[in-house]
Amino acid sequence: MLLPGLFLFFSLFSLAFSNEPLNSHLLPRPLILEYPENIIETTQFKQLDNELQLQCTSWRFAAEANNLNPWKTIPQECAEYVRDYVMGRGYRLDLERVSNEAGVYAKSVQMSGDGQDAWVFDVDETLLSNLPYYADHGYGLEIFDPVEFDKWVGKAVAPAIEPSLKLYKEVLGLGFKVFLLTGRSEKQRSVTEENLINAGFQDWDKLILRASDDHGKLATIYKSEKRSEMVKEGYRILGNSGDQWSDLLGSPTSNRSFKLPNPMYYIP
Amino acid sequence: MLLPGLFLFFSLFSLAFSNEPLNSHLLPRPLILEYPENIIETTQFKQLDNELQLQCTSWRFAAEANNLNPWKTIPQECAEYVRDYVMGRGYRLDLERVSNEAGVYAKSVQMSGDGQDAWVFDVDETLLSNLPYYADHGYGLEIFDPVEFDKWVGKAVAPAIEPSLKLYKEVLGLGFKVFLLTGRSEKQRSVTEENLINAGFQDWDKLILRASDDHGKLATIYKSEKRSEMVKEGYRILGNSGDQWSDLLGSPTSNRSFKLPNPMYYIP
Repeated sequence: MLLPGLFLFFSLFSLAFSNEPLNSHLLPRPLILEYPENIIETTQFKQLDNELQLQCTSWRFAAEANNLNPWKTIPQECAEYVRDYVMGRGYRLDLERVSNEAGVYAKSVQMSGDGQDAWVFDVDETLLSNLPYYADHGYGLEIFDPVEFDKWVGKAVAPAIEPSLKLYKEVLGLGFKVFLLTGRSEKQRSVTEENLINAGFQDWDKLILRASDDHGKLATIYKSEKRSEMVKEGYRILGNSGDQWSDLLGSPTSNRSFKLPNPMYYIP
Repeated sequence: MLLPGLFLFFSLFSLAFSNEPLNSHLLPRPLILEYPENIIETTQFKQLDNELQLQCTSWRFAAEANNLNPWKTIPQECAEYVRDYVMGRGYRLDLERVSNEAGVYAKSVQMSGDGQDAWVFDVDETLLSNLPYYADHGYGLEIFDPVEFDKWVGKAVAPAIEPSLKLYKEVLGLGFKVFLLTGRSEKQRSVTEENLINAGFQDWDKLILRASDDHGKLATIYKSEKRSEMVKEGYRILGNSGDQWSDLLGSPTSNRSFKLPNPMYYIP
């Protein structure tokens, strides 16, 4: 039942990305996620009956409010709903709103001027979008395959989440130190840097990846430890943007945290 | 534009509650929130165009994910959306889901058997529903009026949120100590107890209300302090249910927190 839909969306992605060869060195800069909006939006919410729409919206709320923790895949019956959401205007609106709210807050902060005011960004589904990968893997319906995902990461072609790029630039412009804190491995440093730069991100203060002794840790623990190190170095973490609660919870917490939507996967 | 709708819903509420005199001593026990569902559900989502539906859903997500903090009233343009949601199946489904998820977790907990395993419940919009009050006050469109709200609280007629009552009984049955931690004032202890009992809640271990020196505190601070006291007394807070992030955030946090939906108001 899902296959025709997947094929359709794979085709749309092929269309959207057909001008972009996989060799990232040839990619136009910055890489911005372009949604095939005209085609998708007209069909959104029309294929699903009202009951399924309600049920899957309820599931999505529960996921976003961290009530479901932990979950491994999206519910089978919500496969089309999640696809419609992430490929349609809903996801983009949510991304724009969280970026705007964070921007309003960032501008309201009294900067100390000592260079110790910091903003933490997660990478995947926060700055970079792996939607092209997930479009090919059921939008969260398939169990996460780290080998396949690492191959995708290695291509360094993940597009920017445009509203996050906007926030990123605003935050830098306001004088925040920017820390990128990702669950990606230290081995992926160069492809991650390459991808970030190709997608338009630059001037970060530090890109923190999992070292070998971080690999067994839950993301909440690993990220809390890294934020703790920032605080020990004298930084004040005033903002934190992430699509996972494990980016935001734990100690120390940021003065304000911004939860980007992600109905496709959950990282504890 | 809103007035005919408000009148309609006021009438529905009058209908739903017309058999229940305001003198709570005469109320049937337990009081359960009965949604006038047949009338509401058929009209749900049909009065709003797709764009407004998307925008208000996005706003609701941002509110539930704590991205908007702080907000004082719901957006004017989402007045009907919020009304339709809280009066329709969406809210009920969300309440049922969070209750079910919490129940699954509660059953999975290895109880210590020493009587120190605790579950914390907030009261308003967690155990008791103030929907009849908010139906009369724009479902969050009006600025919060503490005098009017206290008059409502004084009536002690807030119905139970049925899925929460189910969870409450399950949690008690499993052997958890139950703490009710509310932002209501100590002066409202007797009406709160009366209302809770009338609505079917009983056998809580402690009902904690704001003492006079708690009144100036943010809810996050006040509730964290009270949880801290529980921990000092040797309790392990394994579950925490609340409709506000200020019920759940701060230190100590519960082992698992459950965020009930509330698109009507925000308490910092």
